[in-house]
Amino acid sequence: MSRTVLRYFALLNLALTVALPVTTTAQTTVPDDPAARAGLGLVPWPSHLERQSGRLAVDGGFYAVLTGYTEPRLERAVDRLERRIAARTGVIPLPGRQAAGTAGATLLIRCEGPGEKVQSWTEDESYRLTVGPERAELETATPVGVLRGLETLLQLVRSDGEGFGIPAVVVEDVPRFPWRGLLIDACRHWIPPEVIKRNLDGMAAVKLNVLHWHLSEDQGFRVESRRYPKLHELGSDGNYYTQDEIREIVAYARDRGIRVVPEFDMPGHTTSWFVGYPELASGPGPYEIGRRWGVMKPHMDPTARSTYRFLRRFIDEMVDLFPDPYWHIGGDEVPGDEWAENPRIQTFMIDEELADKHDLQAWFNRELADLLADEDRSIVGWDEILHPDLPEGIVIQSWRGMEGLVQAAREGRHTILSNGWYLDHIQSAARHYRVDPLSGPAAELGPEEQTFILGGEACMWSEFVTAETIDSRIWPRTGAIAERLWSPATVTDEDDLYRRLDVLSRYLEGFGLTHLSARTALLDRLADGLPLPPLEALSDVLEPVKGYQRPATGRYTSLIPLNRLVDATRPESLTARRFGRAVDRVVADPAGAVEERQYVAEQLALWRSLPGALYPHLQERALLAEAEPLVGDLAGLAEVGEAALKALTTGTRLDPAEAEAARAKVQAAGRPKAELLIMVAPAVGRLLEGTGAGAVVDIPPAR
Amino acid sequence: MSRTVLRYFALLNLALTVALPVTTTAQTTVPDDPAARAGLGLVPWPSHLERQSGRLAVDGGFYAVLTGYTEPRLERAVDRLERRIAARTGVIPLPGRQAAGTAGATLLIRCEGPGEKVQSWTEDESYRLTVGPERAELETATPVGVLRGLETLLQLVRSDGEGFGIPAVVVEDVPRFPWRGLLIDACRHWIPPEVIKRNLDGMAAVKLNVLHWHLSEDQGFRVESRRYPKLHELGSDGNYYTQDEIREIVAYARDRGIRVVPEFDMPGHTTSWFVGYPELASGPGPYEIGRRWGVMKPHMDPTARSTYRFLRRFIDEMVDLFPDPYWHIGGDEVPGDEWAENPRIQTFMIDEELADKHDLQAWFNRELADLLADEDRSIVGWDEILHPDLPEGIVIQSWRGMEGLVQAAREGRHTILSNGWYLDHIQSAARHYRVDPLSGPAAELGPEEQTFILGGEACMWSEFVTAETIDSRIWPRTGAIAERLWSPATVTDEDDLYRRLDVLSRYLEGFGLTHLSARTALLDRLADGLPLPPLEALSDVLEPVKGYQRPATGRYTSLIPLNRLVDATRPESLTARRFGRAVDRVVADPAGAVEERQYVAEQLALWRSLPGALYPHLQERALLAEAEPLVGDLAGLAEVGEAALKALTTGTRLDPAEAEAARAKVQAAGRPKAELLIMVAPAVGRLLEGTGAGAVVDIPPAR
Repeated sequence: MSRTVLRYFALLNLALTVALPVTTTAQTTVPDDPAARAGLGLVPWPSHLERQSGRLAVDGGFYAVLTGYTEPRLERAVDRLERRIAARTGVIPLPGRQAAGTAGATLLIRCEGPGEKVQSWTEDESYRLTVGPERAELETATPVGVLRGLETLLQLVRSDGEGFGIPAVVVEDVPRFPWRGLLIDACRHWIPPEVIKRNLDGMAAVKLNVLHWHLSEDQGFRVESRRYPKLHELGSDGNYYTQDEIREIVAYARDRGIRVVPEFDMPGHTTSWFVGYPELASGPGPYEIGRRWGVMKPHMDPTARSTYRFLRRFIDEMVDLFPDPYWHIGGDEVPGDEWAENPRIQTFMIDEELADKHDLQAWFNRELADLLADEDRSIVGWDEILHPDLPEGIVIQSWRGMEGLVQAAREGRHTILSNGWYLDHIQSAARHYRVDPLSGPAAELGPEEQTFILGGEACMWSEFVTAETIDSRIWPRTGAIAERLWSPATVTDEDDLYRRLDVLSRYLEGFGLTHLSARTALLDRLADGLPLPPLEALSDVLEPVKGYQRPATGRYTSLIPLNRLVDATRPESLTARRFGRAVDRVVADPAGAVEERQYVAEQLALWRSLPGALYPHLQERALLAEAEPLVGDLAGLAEVGEAALKALTTGTRLDPAEAEAARAKVQAAGRPKAELLIMVAPAVGRLLEGTGAGAVVDIPPAR
Repeated sequence: MSRTVLRYFALLNLALTVALPVTTTAQTTVPDDPAARAGLGLVPWPSHLERQSGRLAVDGGFYAVLTGYTEPRLERAVDRLERRIAARTGVIPLPGRQAAGTAGATLLIRCEGPGEKVQSWTEDESYRLTVGPERAELETATPVGVLRGLETLLQLVRSDGEGFGIPAVVVEDVPRFPWRGLLIDACRHWIPPEVIKRNLDGMAAVKLNVLHWHLSEDQGFRVESRRYPKLHELGSDGNYYTQDEIREIVAYARDRGIRVVPEFDMPGHTTSWFVGYPELASGPGPYEIGRRWGVMKPHMDPTARSTYRFLRRFIDEMVDLFPDPYWHIGGDEVPGDEWAENPRIQTFMIDEELADKHDLQAWFNRELADLLADEDRSIVGWDEILHPDLPEGIVIQSWRGMEGLVQAAREGRHTILSNGWYLDHIQSAARHYRVDPLSGPAAELGPEEQTFILGGEACMWSEFVTAETIDSRIWPRTGAIAERLWSPATVTDEDDLYRRLDVLSRYLEGFGLTHLSARTALLDRLADGLPLPPLEALSDVLEPVKGYQRPATGRYTSLIPLNRLVDATRPESLTARRFGRAVDRVVADPAGAVEERQYVAEQLALWRSLPGALYPHLQERALLAEAEPLVGDLAGLAEVGEAALKALTTGTRLDPAEAEAARAKVQAAGRPKAELLIMVAPAVGRLLEGTGAGAVVDIPPAR
């Protein structure tokens, strides 16, 4: 760390108090200094961290003591901390060791007092953590602050030459935004309770604080309702959370400082409700559980009093399960055709002077908001619900762009961002990282208006994930989003982000997430006895197609297994990232970039070897046959790359015909096959262009 | 398949009827013909299988119909079948497709009638499965027969050039032994419900039919008791099965044709009972949960009437949870010191004319048998309980040798074998496979006596496994034991076993077992960012030390995490097996065995490269530091191997000093380090010996 930075931190410390106030849009002007993060794998990076000399040993004598306010939630947190350290390091936490008293404790935790009875977005999450050679101390205002600080401490534990230890640091930390969420859609594919739980562990690790649980959809109603049992009995194919499971998960989340906001999407996306209760719908029925993806026609009837009687009793039952002060009503994608076709609804609209479907939906939302207000719940809804008639206290979730966010803030409504953070769109971590709720048009807002922007949520829609693959779509990319929502806006270095995400990724897998191992499991099944390395080498350079390209194939329903190479393949090819940077250095300095040149040559040789290793086996494996063109194109890219590398190194040129053929090959290799993209195609194109062979245009999307 | 074999099967078919009778010791004289098994991955191999030409396509139109007797258990089995096929192949089982009727069904299942209300070892498990190009038919006497046949069908599904299909076959199958078990010790380390469940799935796949669930021990009492809550509250560290969980697991097992025999080990191995109820013990107490491994002193007091009053009420509560007609009373390892030190117990023995601790234990067992008889339960016990005073109807489980088995059979008592099948002893699959309950001294028994030998059980004691590693110790080796217990005694070809275990292994991992992926997860944590291949290459040639060598180190307690290289490493090195066979061919024919020579040379080069890849990183990783001598020894072996290979190929000799140094190197490399053995050391020794450089003696155990 430079002397300047040290001086800066020293000054800063004077200005900070232990119990940091909650500031929803704490903008700091700390310059981003990746060097200060060297060797530390923290995600999200704290608002302030000062390195000091020395380390705290984490050995058999490690134990933590709660010295201030305590409650069972904190005791369980300490227990989890010790278990996790034990599993990771081999340190032995003896049960009952706490009785040994504070004198010999390794970690002293001092919490000032209890937090909110039901955690809300105003909860104080700040903490101060100091680690010295003798002991660590964690000071916070609330138990949630303790939870945040313990996660930082756990991420700081590392193996070094002397065993396990925590480098000496002073951390003073407070989130930039108070609403930092992950949406999990448990409807399009069923996501069992244990998968939710391990993802809550992951969320806690990166200090996310809202599980937005998408619980009803055209394709499934996922909560046991005792009042209206046909909801889950006929609307779920038997895949739903029992009320006990819901309670357990809500308690599990609270133990980790995470709120649970349920979403029951209405008035559209409701087909599964109508299988058992067709009288709620605007059409004549009967209805079946939706099997296809996309926007569907069935809508709730917003004009029938019976709809609201049903919803009142339903909400009354559900609020006992979900204590959070917010309730997500959905409200997205309401084409309104079923309303248009229903004469009674049309008459109602004329009588009530409702100009169009937006007015009718606003009417419905107002009624719904009233029902929820009776239960002390405020509503969250997708940006379609924005309408002048809506009551105060709602939160707008902006998914279609920044516009909803900015408009809501201008109107003095609270709002959160999800546009740019759709995990199912299979974008790079860097791309998600560049999204900032206070950037672009939001940067033009006044400071007062900006305070209405509470944060945002990553969204894991589940059309193309199952319990087996969902972790791989959530992690580690969600770490980038979590950092954007927690860390100062100035923390933006992408190389450093990737370095730390790599540490995070292994850390998460180490305690139960399956985002890394899922690929092995899936490839193993595809390989059917074939050694994995060639398949892994192939998958390493691939990424699934982006955005809405998979649903656009039209071949998918909820009954089609997701067990192909595209499902096994991770959303982001780190090999392509590394290869691309090596290529750029080689092109910039063909003679000088020795290591990079060697790396590029090795990769090209590996890819060229794949047809030999894979061709004899693909056709006899039904699920792998579709990989053949990918193997061929990758080998073709390797040949182009080798020719280009040779030309670059020797300072020669490809002859024009050869160059044209090479450009065509790269371009063809860049096109999706088997719903996969060869992500090294653009870099091979740049290598080729570097020889003066002309540019290859129109290859995969920017990262 | 040869014409002779075809003719043999044709003759055999004439002699077989559909509903095969249960024969407990069905000895056949079918010669083992691995060629007939080519391309099929079945484990266990059926008693009779005839290949025919053609295949049944498994595509989007696949569905199964129950045409005979049915019950919910069978419907759930069909549902599981379709789900598993869907997950594996991408075939779509449309819900409600069964309604389409039998005409277009791919699989017709005809079950004659219901089975036993509570499955026992006399249940008929036979089935007949015919697969033709148009459809498959499964005919059985009982639902359990259907379950067995469906597992065979599932294992037959394979990917071929045309997609997924099942080769045309006629299978007529009946188990050789009726008691085929797996013991899981849930006490030494806690094994959570989901781990039990996935292992039940594995058991079902290889047609095991008894889960022997070891539920109480010095180190933990694992069942919720409402009558005596201090059993689980004070005796389990909070890790126990609730009664609901027990019921769910018992039902889950029954759905898969698996009995659940609970073991509450008494009168020794009972420390955890005494933490809450010291009055049951023979000593003064107080007692704490055992943390070390081995035989412990606390014993139940067999002389106090209060002990039996307690046990009566306890058994009365537990039998509601465990419907099996058998109850395992343990009875092993009773040193009796606590009895010897208690004057009241000594007086009792004099009064009752009990000569020694064996008589006293027999007294206890008789009382226990009476209590259990009142609840219609027969007892199973470890071979120590064999005593003339025992009542009839008991089953003796022989763990110390074949003697108990043979003696019990001679006395007309039912008996099962576990000696030779201790999975925690980390022996090869081949070694377990060679164990046969009717071999050795048991082969000398008369045919009548042999019928008392009901089968056997693999034993997974959990001192050195956790929920994370237990699968890797059970699978795939338990497949070899399952085959020994199911298949004809003549099926003994070990190469073919390993080929099929490899298919089985991937199949099991494909539906949820974690025996393969666990290593990656553990190595990943150890590697802490290091690329895995060099570590995997190292682990590939290692095996944990055998038998009781790990506990003999004396350093282990139940609180020590099992997260080291020895825990990550699989019990059997298939690389060592393959390398050893290649070496033997090279030694036998140095000029001719070209492929083998190349393979050996490649392996040696890989091992020689490991210090370069690993040395710079091991010491800064606390948990990997102990791997350094292994890496060094393996590289040393590689040097010896390369010198020997060169000498062999060129027909030269090492000079005597070099040969002596090489022998010493091999010998040193053969000694355990970090509780691991380098399993390729013997083969390198043979390579060296092949050059005429003298024999290396005293390297790791025979396989």
